Amino acid sequence: MDVSVHPPRHAVRDAVARAIAEDLTPLGDLSAALLPAGVQARATFVSRSRGVVAGTMCATEAFAQIDESLVVEWQLDDGAAVEPGSVIGTVDGAMASILTAERTALNFLGHLSGVATRVRELVERADPLRVWDTRKTTPGLRSLEKAAVRAGGGRNHRGNLSDWVMLKDNHLMGLGITAGVHLAKDRWPGRTVHVECERLDQVIEAAEAGADAILLDNMSPAQVRDCVVAVHERHGARRPLLEISGGITLDTVAAYAGTGADLVSSGSITNSAPVLDIGLDILRTDDVRPR
Amino acid sequence: MDVSVHPPRHAVRDAVARAIAEDLTPLGDLSAALLPAGVQARATFVSRSRGVVAGTMCATEAFAQIDESLVVEWQLDDGAAVEPGSVIGTVDGAMASILTAERTALNFLGHLSGVATRVRELVERADPLRVWDTRKTTPGLRSLEKAAVRAGGGRNHRGNLSDWVMLKDNHLMGLGITAGVHLAKDRWPGRTVHVECERLDQVIEAAEAGADAILLDNMSPAQVRDCVVAVHERHGARRPLLEISGGITLDTVAAYAGTGADLVSSGSITNSAPVLDIGLDILRTDDVRPR
Amino acid sequence: MDVSVHPPRHAVRDAVARAIAEDLTPLGDLSAALLPAGVQARATFVSRSRGVVAGTMCATEAFAQIDESLVVEWQLDDGAAVEPGSVIGTVDGAMASILTAERTALNFLGHLSGVATRVRELVERADPLRVWDTRKTTPGLRSLEKAAVRAGGGRNHRGNLSDWVMLKDNHLMGLGITAGVHLAKDRWPGRTVHVECERLDQVIEAAEAGADAILLDNMSPAQVRDCVVAVHERHGARRPLLEISGGITLDTVAAYAGTGADLVSSGSITNSAPVLDIGLDILRTDDVRPR
Amino acid sequence: MDVSVHPPRHAVRDAVARAIAEDLTPLGDLSAALLPAGVQARATFVSRSRGVVAGTMCATEAFAQIDESLVVEWQLDDGAAVEPGSVIGTVDGAMASILTAERTALNFLGHLSGVATRVRELVERADPLRVWDTRKTTPGLRSLEKAAVRAGGGRNHRGNLSDWVMLKDNHLMGLGITAGVHLAKDRWPGRTVHVECERLDQVIEAAEAGADAILLDNMSPAQVRDCVVAVHERHGARRPLLEISGGITLDTVAAYAGTGADLVSSGSITNSAPVLDIGLDILRTDDVRPR
Amino acid sequence: MDVSVHPPRHAVRDAVARAIAEDLTPLGDLSAALLPAGVQARATFVSRSRGVVAGTMCATEAFAQIDESLVVEWQLDDGAAVEPGSVIGTVDGAMASILTAERTALNFLGHLSGVATRVRELVERADPLRVWDTRKTTPGLRSLEKAAVRAGGGRNHRGNLSDWVMLKDNHLMGLGITAGVHLAKDRWPGRTVHVECERLDQVIEAAEAGADAILLDNMSPAQVRDCVVAVHERHGARRPLLEISGGITLDTVAAYAGTGADLVSSGSITNSAPVLDIGLDILRTDDVRPR
Amino acid sequence: MDVSVHPPRHAVRDAVARAIAEDLTPLGDLSAALLPAGVQARATFVSRSRGVVAGTMCATEAFAQIDESLVVEWQLDDGAAVEPGSVIGTVDGAMASILTAERTALNFLGHLSGVATRVRELVERADPLRVWDTRKTTPGLRSLEKAAVRAGGGRNHRGNLSDWVMLKDNHLMGLGITAGVHLAKDRWPGRTVHVECERLDQVIEAAEAGADAILLDNMSPAQVRDCVVAVHERHGARRPLLEISGGITLDTVAAYAGTGADLVSSGSITNSAPVLDIGLDILRTDDVRPR
Repeated sequence: MDVSVHPPRHAVRDAVARAIAEDLTPLGDLSAALLPAGVQARATFVSRSRGVVAGTMCATEAFAQIDESLVVEWQLDDGAAVEPGSVIGTVDGAMASILTAERTALNFLGHLSGVATRVRELVERADPLRVWDTRKTTPGLRSLEKAAVRAGGGRNHRGNLSDWVMLKDNHLMGLGITAGVHLAKDRWPGRTVHVECERLDQVIEAAEAGADAILLDNMSPAQVRDCVVAVHERHGARRPLLEISGGITLDTVAAYAGTGADLVSSGSITNSAPVLDIGLDILRTDDVRPR
Repeated sequence: MDVSVHPPRHAVRDAVARAIAEDLTPLGDLSAALLPAGVQARATFVSRSRGVVAGTMCATEAFAQIDESLVVEWQLDDGAAVEPGSVIGTVDGAMASILTAERTALNFLGHLSGVATRVRELVERADPLRVWDTRKTTPGLRSLEKAAVRAGGGRNHRGNLSDWVMLKDNHLMGLGITAGVHLAKDRWPGRTVHVECERLDQVIEAAEAGADAILLDNMSPAQVRDCVVAVHERHGARRPLLEISGGITLDTVAAYAGTGADLVSSGSITNSAPVLDIGLDILRTDDVRPR
Repeated sequence: MDVSVHPPRHAVRDAVARAIAEDLTPLGDLSAALLPAGVQARATFVSRSRGVVAGTMCATEAFAQIDESLVVEWQLDDGAAVEPGSVIGTVDGAMASILTAERTALNFLGHLSGVATRVRELVERADPLRVWDTRKTTPGLRSLEKAAVRAGGGRNHRGNLSDWVMLKDNHLMGLGITAGVHLAKDRWPGRTVHVECERLDQVIEAAEAGADAILLDNMSPAQVRDCVVAVHERHGARRPLLEISGGITLDTVAAYAGTGADLVSSGSITNSAPVLDIGLDILRTDDVRPR
Repeated sequence: MDVSVHPPRHAVRDAVARAIAEDLTPLGDLSAALLPAGVQARATFVSRSRGVVAGTMCATEAFAQIDESLVVEWQLDDGAAVEPGSVIGTVDGAMASILTAERTALNFLGHLSGVATRVRELVERADPLRVWDTRKTTPGLRSLEKAAVRAGGGRNHRGNLSDWVMLKDNHLMGLGITAGVHLAKDRWPGRTVHVECERLDQVIEAAEAGADAILLDNMSPAQVRDCVVAVHERHGARRPLLEISGGITLDTVAAYAGTGADLVSSGSITNSAPVLDIGLDILRTDDVRPR
Repeated sequence: MDVSVHPPRHAVRDAVARAIAEDLTPLGDLSAALLPAGVQARATFVSRSRGVVAGTMCATEAFAQIDESLVVEWQLDDGAAVEPGSVIGTVDGAMASILTAERTALNFLGHLSGVATRVRELVERADPLRVWDTRKTTPGLRSLEKAAVRAGGGRNHRGNLSDWVMLKDNHLMGLGITAGVHLAKDRWPGRTVHVECERLDQVIEAAEAGADAILLDNMSPAQVRDCVVAVHERHGARRPLLEISGGITLDTVAAYAGTGADLVSSGSITNSAPVLDIGLDILRTDDVRPR
Repeated sequence: MDVSVHPPRHAVRDAVARAIAEDLTPLGDLSAALLPAGVQARATFVSRSRGVVAGTMCATEAFAQIDESLVVEWQLDDGAAVEPGSVIGTVDGAMASILTAERTALNFLGHLSGVATRVRELVERADPLRVWDTRKTTPGLRSLEKAAVRAGGGRNHRGNLSDWVMLKDNHLMGLGITAGVHLAKDRWPGRTVHVECERLDQVIEAAEAGADAILLDNMSPAQVRDCVVAVHERHGARRPLLEISGGITLDTVAAYAGTGADLVSSGSITNSAPVLDIGLDILRTDDVRPR
């Protein structure tokens, strides 16, 4: 398991506990309760589409919280590419427990794989630009979606308002960029200071002031290239990162790929990714010998 | 406020509290802390696209949890249609507080309005079929997304595993449909018993056995029509509801609209709806008189 | 273990965690801390009365949360009948841990077995009527008490306000029964619509309107019989369920048993059931060989 | 409001939040959502039986958590005696909100008033003995039931395992009473040390060793009297409290009233008290002028 | 493991879960994610100073919550004395998991051992007085710090406002000591009643009234001695405990040791104890055979 | 109120709720319950020592959670210097509520002011070096202590493992500094990369590799100066921050003040700061007119 593409365990535990509570309160699974006792099954996660897997830890946790005797094994780890028919993993144990946990496990796996899939597409088209996510995530799933971004090959922009400084026009009111960056660096030494700019002169000022990253907001490829040239000339290797942002889509990103900027960011990879279609094929296994 | 299109308050409070904690742990908003004290602002929620609003209670709650002195007012309630430029609501108060809560509020509003918008589109194309949601919701947001479905004009299928019985092939193993429905009715009297069927003979058997609703899985419009005729002939007004399900999309739903079935269900309205693009326009208001 | 008579695991975990926190905050068990280290014991749950067992999952969980090395085994499952002296289960392990968890385990077991016992009594006297519970449950224990009702042989009425529609006079204000049922069916298709009626004409109207279940409120056995006849005549096999409610007790239920109604409901089985007297007999086992 | 008969606020908030979540997850109140918007009502809590009120803070909190605009006023405080027809309090505001909160509020009020009522009966029959509760409480409701005991005129025995030492035979294994009490006093100086005794000689030993309270377990009135005499003679004013325990009921307690002991304890007042029958009478108030 | 020096498990679980959430939200450990997969390590807790160990359960729990496959073993239990270089325990398993949990484990271990160390110093200098803690604890860590006090050889004063009565001048307003103690004994029979006194006459009155413990507030050694003599003369063996309090420090406590009082209390042992310097020495163990 | 020196509200709410639960579970404040109803009071927070205030939001919240009718006003905000006798703030309202909340409010205020005071001392002696905190915080109080550091005039190092990369020898195993920094920059673009170094050659390598900050571990002032010179010469204005760390105390910091480094970090300011002695003077105010 590659730890770098998975979310922290406490976030997985908490998110799964909430999902189970919302699916089983107050009476539990009425339908599974009709099954005769003792029926065993093997279930297989199979992708129905092309994409990238993410969320296996959540699926494992969902089965474990429903019934710790279920045995879950993964053939593929988060970040793996799948085609229609790819087997992702298996679950063995009580049929009733598998049916109860099925939808919760699939909701996580489908959603997070959907994010990873969308990221991978953008990563491939944006190359050599790297892909940054944003704080435009689904409420309550920040940790999980940001891990899915990593699984898809993207990079994580700031995780939240607490981990770096981002100066937009409302933050800079009356100060101007230079004073704003200096204030941020004085108050939060060592921390990334990121400035949102709309024009070349702002970019030059932000870079001069010592910004660590600059968001080029809603610029055309040509404008971006001008900014890149200006910043590279003035600051060489110790220059700030240049991020392209503002409505970049799978269709338009290729036009920016060769601009020489560092990164492109996208909110839609987390807040508008359709699920990846993954199914759970369930077989009764009573006649199979226990292992 | 039309209570029927909003989620229960406890669900709003809890979801917002989690979203705020994930965006502000541990240091709070580093950038807003750079603002001079006392700056006041008015912010306006404006739609950038055509769609349907949902999630205003969540946005209100986000501002209140950050700073209870903020004043939030809505020009439009959940369920209202918007065009690019439509003003949805306003927030007045401390600039720093508004900036801190902005993204959390928008994440809820954008996501839930996205669901409502997608539902409305399907409702319009499916007419006279009604639209049912599913349990394919984003983990942790079941209550909120199901309310957004209602705001969009859809109907809620079962809320979770606990509120009605749904019999799929794995539940019916060795029993058959008739015995399965009778068992369910005996164990859970008064509760909806819903049966998933793939063929006409199963549909006839389920209806005969007393099922309250029948899911017609992956059938063509012609097959659906055969089922409708068979069930109407046999059971008249006291017949079970007939639901069309299985990969119905905005593009294909029209072909089913005239089949005479009752409902079409779709997982994608909740788990694959892109956000509705809503922005927050912020103006400094220090020179405006306090009211 | 018969899954249909047990509550969902998440509800057990949460309820037990709360009970342990309220019994051990902040210093833990002062008295058990006086025991010399290493004392081992075997404890036996023994019923002191006649009744029905429920709550064994909660007792298991209480011991596990206090000390996961304790070994709990049950001779009887939820739903089993006991007499004075019946052995229900055993716990082996550290004496201090057993003493610390004892009261929490017994509080769950006694209360839930008390509910199951009261239900069984009513089930036996009401036969062939089936017994329905209500939402008159002890706050915070809904899931657990509803499972105990199933263990006692009763059936679960709606689990909460979210799983089916129940129309009382206050809901029908100005609408009338027919329009109320139609509105409910339109807004919540597929979902049980239950109507509370006080008179025969209301019952006839509700059945005609398509109600799935009708509550006959505070009627005499003769009045119930009139309603049964009227509904059976008009609707045959597809008729709504008829529920008798309103102050039915162990003493009066027999008079209703032969009315031909379907169910009798009672709030007192959950909110007024005395505990079943179950004790924990503890023996020091240091001189017994470890197994 | 007499603070001494109410539970701490945090316990009320938490218990009510759980009760509301279990009654409204995931879709909220389906039936109240059918009401036309804007209907106002006044609801009156009326006792249907003779008893003692407890739990008003919980009822207030239930309404507030559902809709903070509801106005709740109490004519009677916890501890007040009621007769059939007594008005306890009123709620004014939106009909839909009142209906949604009604059952949660009544479940608390009925259960806690039931406890207070049962306590008051025992207090009256036991006089001049005072009544002690136990740790035999409903899981999750310890704080609330112990406050209801005070409302009924009883006294609180230890609140949990953490607040005083209670030595039963299993705690004293191999030590004997004298050494056990000394050990407890050494480890937990200042803290109540309570010893459970079955025979006069144990009582004398425990008193001599410095126990602060002695539980006389399963003794006849004559045996109790012998213990009282022995302890009074030896220790006068600085004697330990003498508690009678073990299956004392409303029917048998009078025989112990004159024994000279200090207290009688009972688990059944908390774990087996039937609810007090309290109803909520609701009137539509649209035609009444707003105040 | 000596259970009497450890906190209750639920308090450990909850405190560790919070600490991990605050250290890993939202993205987890960025640095550990850079490690190549599969690196194994052995880590050793080593004291860098002289002191007393406490908090090992918390450290164990921190590693378990991060990665349940880590193996933790303790050479020393809470309460053990350490010198610079003393090995306290070891952890074996994945390097990345150990690094992620390291700081959380050390924060608990260092803080709680710091408390135990400070307590032990005071215990040694105060002898034969025993040392009592207070409610002046770090918010959220009451259970853990009180257990560390026991590990250091101190005793726990009341755990919170709920476990015994403490009467200060504001509680006694208008009542006086005698009536105050009687009221407390009447309302809370069996429970410790503790009175804060500033003068000898108050001490005599409180003892006469039946107080179980008396706090001698801000008195000189000579004043304490006068109080001791007065109380011993009047009440002999059944006298209340006499506690010295008010700014007693490691430097001044020796002057009180011979006064004949029972206990000295100190808030600074819990709220002002510096951490005990404990380090975690980590060695890569890939070339070591697995056991 | 200067938002930059306060913690985020959600962290305050949660920490206070936990502190209140641990102080009042299960029975509430036994002693305050003895007060006659209706007694009003005014309480004043007064410093008994020289120091810096922090934690006023927590104190406000503690009073509000106990009794929302209490009125709290602050004369001084977090960050203000106090002398013995300085009035910090006042509380007006019910005496019983004030007494119940007093210790919780003081525990927060004393602890956090203690941290701020210790920080201010170090800031003054370290000038012109700035002071950085660490992750060596009290478990569960990270947000609050980091805000107190800001109130004291210090700066926040990373808030947790999630907000920037810190490379120690265990992270760099087999990679070396240059490759390690490049890997970190590739995986986490834009994010601070901080490297721990013990020797001049490591410092030069880290700076060359592009580290944003370098921790000079356990170096003498002369060694620090060498590193400063080397880095300034090579990198000028775009150089990494240089942090001095490793056992720097109030006594030794002055020797480093003139080295030209940027920051000194200290764990003891958060994990070993004694409380600032703040008292709450309470006066009965019944005879004062209500305002």
